Amino acid sequence: MTDRQTDLDARISRVAFNADGLVPAIVQEHATHEVLMLAWMDAEALRRTLTTGRVTYWSRSRGVYWRKGDTSGNIQVVKGARLDCDGDVVLLEVAQTGPACHTGTRTCFESDLSRDDVGDRDLHPVVG
Amino acid sequence: MTDRQTDLDARISRVAFNADGLVPAIVQEHATHEVLMLAWMDAEALRRTLTTGRVTYWSRSRGVYWRKGDTSGNIQVVKGARLDCDGDVVLLEVAQTGPACHTGTRTCFESDLSRDDVGDRDLHPVVG
Repeated sequence: MTDRQTDLDARISRVAFNADGLVPAIVQEHATHEVLMLAWMDAEALRRTLTTGRVTYWSRSRGVYWRKGDTSGNIQVVKGARLDCDGDVVLLEVAQTGPACHTGTRTCFESDLSRDDVGDRDLHPVVG
Repeated sequence: MTDRQTDLDARISRVAFNADGLVPAIVQEHATHEVLMLAWMDAEALRRTLTTGRVTYWSRSRGVYWRKGDTSGNIQVVKGARLDCDGDVVLLEVAQTGPACHTGTRTCFESDLSRDDVGDRDLHPVVG
């Protein structure tokens, strides 16, 4: 085992995966700090992400690894990876090519939860 | 039931809570776009957050609601709330008073996962 592998194993061992062996990864555009999406990784997806520089997730619905952009071309290149204080959330900084969302929008967070999505928005305060 | 309550119920009903009745909430400083933390909400925590403008979570470890800042003074005031394309992740924009992390740091993501935390960082590339 190389020093680099040992180092990588040590870093991945710091992650507190949940009972299903998964950790949520928040994905942020490194240049603009826009939050693009959240998806899930197991240890192997995280290892692939950190070693290849291309973000790879574990699909809970399909039960397969998916490397972002392989189908759509909208790849994510890793610019940084951070772990939270409890070790159970990953924050990835990426360079996103094209829209991050499979719906074709820039981010997955296009739906406003602080207002009624139907009707005259001016009638509703941001919080309320 | 008032129109506002009906509207709020409709918004909360758009959230796809998990099998435990929870949804992860990513919390972002609205001014700087810094990602501060991730915590969990049930429908009642989300309702309190949207109606009071003070961010309230469900503690999975303690089994109680906790309103951020009640103990520390480091409150979070809601500036916006968004839902992702699958309805299963909330993104909150907040005005954070003081450090967001219980460790006293500005954000909970102070640990660099892309490098070995021990030793000479110059020896390690950002990815790998």
